[in-house]
Amino acid sequence: MKRVKTPSRRIIGIDPGLASTGWGIVDCAGGKLRYVGHGSITTVTGRPHAERLLSILESVSSLLDTYSPTESAVEILFFGKNVSSAIPVAEARGVIFAALAERGLPVLELRPNAIKQGVTGVARADKKQVQEMVKIILGLEKIPTPDHASDALAAAICAANSGFGIC
Amino acid sequence: MKRVKTPSRRIIGIDPGLASTGWGIVDCAGGKLRYVGHGSITTVTGRPHAERLLSILESVSSLLDTYSPTESAVEILFFGKNVSSAIPVAEARGVIFAALAERGLPVLELRPNAIKQGVTGVARADKKQVQEMVKIILGLEKIPTPDHASDALAAAICAANSGFGIC
Repeated sequence: MKRVKTPSRRIIGIDPGLASTGWGIVDCAGGKLRYVGHGSITTVTGRPHAERLLSILESVSSLLDTYSPTESAVEILFFGKNVSSAIPVAEARGVIFAALAERGLPVLELRPNAIKQGVTGVARADKKQVQEMVKIILGLEKIPTPDHASDALAAAICAANSGFGIC
Repeated sequence: MKRVKTPSRRIIGIDPGLASTGWGIVDCAGGKLRYVGHGSITTVTGRPHAERLLSILESVSSLLDTYSPTESAVEILFFGKNVSSAIPVAEARGVIFAALAERGLPVLELRPNAIKQGVTGVARADKKQVQEMVKIILGLEKIPTPDHASDALAAAICAANSGFGIC
């Protein structure tokens, strides 16, 4: 049987936040996941609100220029007790979505439980378990930091197998 | 006494929403307010979320190109009972803030009650009263539609006298 080669995919995962937006990139080629990079975009508390959001927009656009991902996965809000903290996250998510759409990237929206399930097999896994699995799956020496970036890699891993294809 | 001429200001008021974002523009020159324009940016329900946010970003940028305002006023969220409806508004607001910051425009964030107070003198004025006052203050023949655009004009009027100067 002739085996069809899977086209190479590059997935950027993003965990939005006004003060800190985590990002992580993985490649999925030949049925294997490969770590590409991770980091965080930070904005300074006290700077004008609009300026911080523009800074996130420009930084995400710059990342897309640098890494040319073919698809994206964004962690979406969980409504906890603190609703007012969800608002700046949603504002940041708005500009991130716009930056992704500007490049025509498919966007997979993932809930935290779906990411946990995708990475550890358990929807209620704790943060530490998810981080350990990210490290193991990508063959890293240590858990990626900061937490937002590790969460973003987890979203990218999850998307590799549940989004626009199977890695 | 020599009278110092007030520099001309052009204020864009914006009432953010994912499905419909209202905008309204007023000039403040020689101590007088003058109506410039109003309208709404609509996005289609059912289109990809990220694409709708990009469309708002591009439409606001295009408005800024066309009208070259010198400052801006944005109505900010009021937390009602329906928290989940606040999230898409916050996402839209995020991209609007980024578009305004991209042009270096000062952004005045206004709560609904501050707008009502600024336009009618009463913080608890009802929607109809605010709309009537917008019509009277700007010398319009009828109440501007849709509601979002009328609200945006109200924000611009309020900003003209409470923001970065007095008209």
